[in-house]
Amino acid sequence: MATDLEIARATPLRPIAEIAARAGIPDAALIPYGRYKAKIDLDFVRAAEARPEGALVLVTGINPTAAGEGKTTTTIGLGDALNALGTRAMICLRAPSLGPCFGTKGGATGGGRAQVAPMEEINLHFTGDFHAVTSANNLLAAMVDNHLHWGNGLGLDPRRVGWRRAMDMNDRSLRNTVVGLGGAAHGVPREDGFDITAASEVMAILCLARDLADLQARLGRIIVGERRDGSAVTARDLKADGAMAALLRDALAPNLVQTLEGSPALVHGGPFANIAHGCNSVIATRLGLRLAEVVVTEAGFGADLGAEKFLHIKCRAAGLAPAACVIVATVRALKLHGGAAKAELAREDLGALARGMANLARHVENMGKFGLPVIVALNRFTSDTEAEIAAVRAAMARLGVEAVLCTHWADGAAGARDLARAVQAAIAARTARFTPLYPEAMPLAGKLRTIAREIYRAAEVQIPPPVAARLARWEEQGFGRLPVCVAKTQFSFSADPGLLGAPEGHVLPVREVRLSAGAGFVVAICGDIMTMPGLPKHPAAERIGLDAAGRIVGLF
Amino acid sequence: MATDLEIARATPLRPIAEIAARAGIPDAALIPYGRYKAKIDLDFVRAAEARPEGALVLVTGINPTAAGEGKTTTTIGLGDALNALGTRAMICLRAPSLGPCFGTKGGATGGGRAQVAPMEEINLHFTGDFHAVTSANNLLAAMVDNHLHWGNGLGLDPRRVGWRRAMDMNDRSLRNTVVGLGGAAHGVPREDGFDITAASEVMAILCLARDLADLQARLGRIIVGERRDGSAVTARDLKADGAMAALLRDALAPNLVQTLEGSPALVHGGPFANIAHGCNSVIATRLGLRLAEVVVTEAGFGADLGAEKFLHIKCRAAGLAPAACVIVATVRALKLHGGAAKAELAREDLGALARGMANLARHVENMGKFGLPVIVALNRFTSDTEAEIAAVRAAMARLGVEAVLCTHWADGAAGARDLARAVQAAIAARTARFTPLYPEAMPLAGKLRTIAREIYRAAEVQIPPPVAARLARWEEQGFGRLPVCVAKTQFSFSADPGLLGAPEGHVLPVREVRLSAGAGFVVAICGDIMTMPGLPKHPAAERIGLDAAGRIVGLF
Repeated sequence: MATDLEIARATPLRPIAEIAARAGIPDAALIPYGRYKAKIDLDFVRAAEARPEGALVLVTGINPTAAGEGKTTTTIGLGDALNALGTRAMICLRAPSLGPCFGTKGGATGGGRAQVAPMEEINLHFTGDFHAVTSANNLLAAMVDNHLHWGNGLGLDPRRVGWRRAMDMNDRSLRNTVVGLGGAAHGVPREDGFDITAASEVMAILCLARDLADLQARLGRIIVGERRDGSAVTARDLKADGAMAALLRDALAPNLVQTLEGSPALVHGGPFANIAHGCNSVIATRLGLRLAEVVVTEAGFGADLGAEKFLHIKCRAAGLAPAACVIVATVRALKLHGGAAKAELAREDLGALARGMANLARHVENMGKFGLPVIVALNRFTSDTEAEIAAVRAAMARLGVEAVLCTHWADGAAGARDLARAVQAAIAARTARFTPLYPEAMPLAGKLRTIAREIYRAAEVQIPPPVAARLARWEEQGFGRLPVCVAKTQFSFSADPGLLGAPEGHVLPVREVRLSAGAGFVVAICGDIMTMPGLPKHPAAERIGLDAAGRIVGLF
Repeated sequence: MATDLEIARATPLRPIAEIAARAGIPDAALIPYGRYKAKIDLDFVRAAEARPEGALVLVTGINPTAAGEGKTTTTIGLGDALNALGTRAMICLRAPSLGPCFGTKGGATGGGRAQVAPMEEINLHFTGDFHAVTSANNLLAAMVDNHLHWGNGLGLDPRRVGWRRAMDMNDRSLRNTVVGLGGAAHGVPREDGFDITAASEVMAILCLARDLADLQARLGRIIVGERRDGSAVTARDLKADGAMAALLRDALAPNLVQTLEGSPALVHGGPFANIAHGCNSVIATRLGLRLAEVVVTEAGFGADLGAEKFLHIKCRAAGLAPAACVIVATVRALKLHGGAAKAELAREDLGALARGMANLARHVENMGKFGLPVIVALNRFTSDTEAEIAAVRAAMARLGVEAVLCTHWADGAAGARDLARAVQAAIAARTARFTPLYPEAMPLAGKLRTIAREIYRAAEVQIPPPVAARLARWEEQGFGRLPVCVAKTQFSFSADPGLLGAPEGHVLPVREVRLSAGAGFVVAICGDIMTMPGLPKHPAAERIGLDAAGRIVGLF
């Protein structure tokens, strides 16, 4: 069987200017990066704001399993199918991180006949946005430590520096470090650590900023640490916001690429809805809505993380309201949620499927709470039996939801035609009434409890006293209106990655909270989740290389 | 007076394809990065190898001072002037690092009418080469620590890991760190540290590799550390070389930009001849020689560092032999070397000038030892008096060398016309007989003593016993034939930045040695020089930002 990379390579790409022209983007607004990638000039983005908006379709999924669900693939297939049916569609994805490419999960450009291309370039350095975020994050860190070194005029408490360094790499050894060792010439020793770039507040700011002025204002509001009296020291206090904005200027411009079927795709923003908010950038999504009749966008991992954050953080900040929601599931993954063994997934198992369907059913119900019409995309594998497919369809029909069979991985646009028709119908019905689950005015702990109760179905949220005290202080300081961005495992509704299916009555243990005053949310880190992943014993990097012609091999 | 950025912005640039065409590079070989930067396809680079070679001209300088000498500016002005005279010239520069842009020194794109453009883009992320080097360096580091974490099958001694992490930032707090803290889930605790990206062995490998296969072979030879028995563990042992090569594939392709006068310039490779070898890449210089009649290239800082490494490391590795050498000096800098105060530089001071000229004279003599014809470029400032200029000319005439007055900063190509004519004459005379100062077979300590004696005029090289033991071991292991890359202050012939002029009889204290088996040299760190710079009390970053139109301001 051909690999994704082989399929992508065998498909001739069109010059990016041709893709842009079809999407309504003139040549003068294109900044080429190689032959098949381009950034879109921010002047054009600004001018497009005056146009009418298309409909926004969110693609999300069940809790991911080792079996793979194909959420990115479905997003791409749906966009391709809409275009094939004559509905002008723009696909909006977040860009991949280097971490998973070299670790376990691989790239994030879809697969089979449903890919964005050129896959090696998008998965590796792309247009440099992640590197710009890393640089801006670490310039601020260097200016913090430099300030301490040169006398600490702002009175920052070195023990209370909250700003961590960033690297776009899975590197567990950088989670907890001590810096500034070696004597007086080499800085002030203090505990520090690195997060993966996608989890940096700078990435969230890039994803949520409306324009360059908003970008710089948000960067200036970043709180790097506290004085002994508890007052905040910001990036603006350090005069770092201007240089950070300069580093990020080009990164704010959305990136245009194409699918293997020639659909336009805006790939822009950071991934990892488990530890970040992990969505396509506001600027790219808003541009897409002005260029296309339908924007198909993805929110990462399960709907408990990606969709909840997409709706509460991104949509609210950007004034967006989805017209429909697609939840991706596979028979194989549902059987895993129902207790089937990974080695047994090719065998029909209606019992495990029935049990595992509880995971899907709960996500369907949750998305309904937000006032969104839901369609289930059942991403077909060859091992799925007719009886299994019929069982999913019947269970969803009982919830009043259509489960549509998809084969875009093998068949491209044709394989997602039925899904596209269902999405067209949902948009035309105009039944969406987007309603957040909590008001802005609710206290931070209350927001956290609301998400835990309504989405995760936890019985309790465990907030240790020092964490509660921090939340209370931030409310006094005026940050109480911010939404909460939960960091937790993606594998379960709970904070325990082993609790599959649809657990209830569990406890959500909050380990740590971080204030992202520039991005505009409070991060609540729950359970054992790490904001810097590690590599497996045999990382994918061991198999990546160049062939004799200098082409990249082993990337998946 | 207009700033460099304002001058650059006021000059309309030509589309990069037009610059390429004039340089003999077809459109099909261009990979655009924005409208005014492009990478040149490696297939075209390989095919060009069959063409005849032009002449190579090295531009170097006296030991730098706070007054500024204008070495990059002279390199650009000379290239522009040669083109204006009808000699097809290619300018080959190394790319700037973010560190000095945010620190003290500023960017590295020349100044006045002698600049490469677009200056903000070249000085910030450019085409992403530095970010690719940082990523490859840190992927290897992550794989080292990951290997320790998962059982250390290769038997690496965690106390003897020599591979450091890298960041393209001035950040003294990262010089000495401890990583892997926090318990068993977070890696193996050990001492570590970061170098600035330009000082990474990966940067040297990128600069010295002839093609992709050579790049990957060199990456594989990197020694990350030792076992308890002293045997080496390499990047290839960790299976990291393939993924590193994949990360660096696009970075190996040379970058084409233009000067404000429309000359082509290949800006490729890492700076910092004080702590690295710091030259334009071998691949770019060799390509330039096949496209142009004359390549003008720069070696950083004073000729004691930049030119010595250019000749012993780069030219020998790449089979290059310069036809002439230009040494840049200014009256102001020579007066500083002669003991004048910085505030008094605008006043005529023939005494200080005469004393400071010893610095220039020694560099002239040193370059002669390599068998190169020398021309002195006297980069004119408005405060220079006729008597001062005459004194420099006369002193150089006594050494049999022409000192040519240049005003390219103010006048562009016209201001370097005389210099270009002198260079044309030197090339035509064919008197160059490039001769390295030491043979490959000389032991490592002997090479170090040769450089110290012949170039620095030190009385003694202090090699502490543990350092001597390491050198001896590397010789036993077969690394004795490698050249030595000295890391020391750029401000003096000695390792003491305060010893200006032409000191003699000083001691060169070797602090540490590092084996760069992939790059193919041994680094000898002398005196207090740091492989990770720090920021000043008020870094330039504080003044960098965006204007209302979103343009970058404050970069210099």
